[in-house]
Amino acid sequence: MKFATLPNGTLDGRLILVSKDLTKAVDATAIAPNLLSVVQNWQAKEADLQALYNKLNTETLDAAFDFDPSACLAPLPRSPQWLDASAFLNHGKLMEEAFNTAPIADFDTIPVMYQGASDDFQGPTVDIPMPSEADGIDFEGEFGVVMAEVPMSATPEEAAKSIRLIVQINDWSLRALGPREMNSGFGFLQAKPSSSFAAVAVTPDELGDAWANGRVNMPLHVTWNGERFGEPHGSEMNFSFPQLMAHAARSRKLTAGCILGSGTVSNSARAAGSACISERRVIEKIDLGEIKTAFMKFGDTVRMQAKFDDGTDGPFGVIEQKVVSN
Amino acid sequence: MKFATLPNGTLDGRLILVSKDLTKAVDATAIAPNLLSVVQNWQAKEADLQALYNKLNTETLDAAFDFDPSACLAPLPRSPQWLDASAFLNHGKLMEEAFNTAPIADFDTIPVMYQGASDDFQGPTVDIPMPSEADGIDFEGEFGVVMAEVPMSATPEEAAKSIRLIVQINDWSLRALGPREMNSGFGFLQAKPSSSFAAVAVTPDELGDAWANGRVNMPLHVTWNGERFGEPHGSEMNFSFPQLMAHAARSRKLTAGCILGSGTVSNSARAAGSACISERRVIEKIDLGEIKTAFMKFGDTVRMQAKFDDGTDGPFGVIEQKVVSN
Repeated sequence: MKFATLPNGTLDGRLILVSKDLTKAVDATAIAPNLLSVVQNWQAKEADLQALYNKLNTETLDAAFDFDPSACLAPLPRSPQWLDASAFLNHGKLMEEAFNTAPIADFDTIPVMYQGASDDFQGPTVDIPMPSEADGIDFEGEFGVVMAEVPMSATPEEAAKSIRLIVQINDWSLRALGPREMNSGFGFLQAKPSSSFAAVAVTPDELGDAWANGRVNMPLHVTWNGERFGEPHGSEMNFSFPQLMAHAARSRKLTAGCILGSGTVSNSARAAGSACISERRVIEKIDLGEIKTAFMKFGDTVRMQAKFDDGTDGPFGVIEQKVVSN
Repeated sequence: MKFATLPNGTLDGRLILVSKDLTKAVDATAIAPNLLSVVQNWQAKEADLQALYNKLNTETLDAAFDFDPSACLAPLPRSPQWLDASAFLNHGKLMEEAFNTAPIADFDTIPVMYQGASDDFQGPTVDIPMPSEADGIDFEGEFGVVMAEVPMSATPEEAAKSIRLIVQINDWSLRALGPREMNSGFGFLQAKPSSSFAAVAVTPDELGDAWANGRVNMPLHVTWNGERFGEPHGSEMNFSFPQLMAHAARSRKLTAGCILGSGTVSNSARAAGSACISERRVIEKIDLGEIKTAFMKFGDTVRMQAKFDDGTDGPFGVIEQKVVSN
């Protein structure tokens, strides 16, 4: 199934189902008012939603309307928790090589993960206000999972059963603020403004073979101001989503609707490009001896779209956003 | 006003008003269904709530019932964000002295703060399940503020206008997991299980003169397994709550209902004792040359109660909890 959320004046928005080909949509609030309530009551709602989704895909529904992703909010405008890993170790290794810092202890066996704000997620095409160009404004293209409840101390195998939806994310970052927050040991806070989401959240079956090994095995195509920036592939993720979920649930229950992100998609092959400016900059430092690329300016745009390996468009829709002065 | 929350099967619980002397309560759901909705709609709800609160305190209401804090959930069982500072610098200085580590850069001019989980706050007297005694189970007694919306880049003066409620918090911590997470630079995650709250959230006027300079100027009385542990005073907080709120809002909006904590209350005078075991341990290391106190075991209890300087009970009620095996 494919889900999206339209504004209706509430914090959670209103639920729509989107057709498999992303052209049509239908209101689904007779089944559940919003996507958060779907994830909270999955077993009770799944069959009715699947029936309506099947009708939308196979019949001409009077209630169907043209799907407009630019009218959508984030699939979950608010979520109980936003946990973001750094599960593509190539990214961290490049950072360490460029800045000659010691590796994080156990980096390759224990995931690193921060907790971010989950109360104000941004939709796929809204302008993004930022306080200052001097903050080092950067995008980070990611994949993520939305989960049903995960009990405290769940194993990866148990956590895997709670994966309900896959999402595509732009985890906005302010790079000038990150080092001080990392050095404090308390982690990212000011360095991580509210994240943005592609309009469509999908059940794993919508990815077909691209959902395997607990990973989104798709390239994430990123352009910056209309120029190709990279298309790193999700298959190189060093920890699976179930492994990351088990890490997050070590000492706490994760309530239904929590979202866990992969961290910026990153590949060891230079030809893949990058999904964040910071990574391009460290590659320039390593390969060219100097950083050539500056961070984003007000008025800059970033576009992100996951595709299938055969080049066809992925199911999430497109993130296309402009950075503006707050 | 004094507010509390009773369970009703929803994530936010149901709203009650509690009398000034904490003996009586009255259902307030005719005005607002839950405390989160009050904070989200403060201006529209304040007058009606104040009128009902005045009646509860001055008349014999048929609808009033005996207030039982042990029946209460956390005042906000879920909140948009939980941001926790470390605003009593004495605590950090003791840690550095004991472990001979370098001070965090700008520690005394820029607050340190982590983002924690805000989806599963615990009530004042429930048992607290933890995965393992080997994790270094510790309590942290704190004060906190619940805010109306704070716009991005608000000044401390602007942020101060959004303070709606004061709360008392036990920020559970797993000390064996903290150092690795601090060293990773990504901050606390597994080291911070869900926090607990005293039953009653109060408007600042309920504190009288004890709410001054953006601080809760009250001693927090802590006992562990019935033995006195400390009563550090909130007045030594090195950053005010408005300063902390402005720090948190530097690059993001804080939506209505966000909670910001002070970090463990800590005083430079040894006689005050401590509000967390970790601090007692580092004081032992500094003053005695060796750590004598172990962390909590399953079955241990902790009790926290803020009092006024004249020794009378504070307005929040008592946190009294037992740690149990998950």
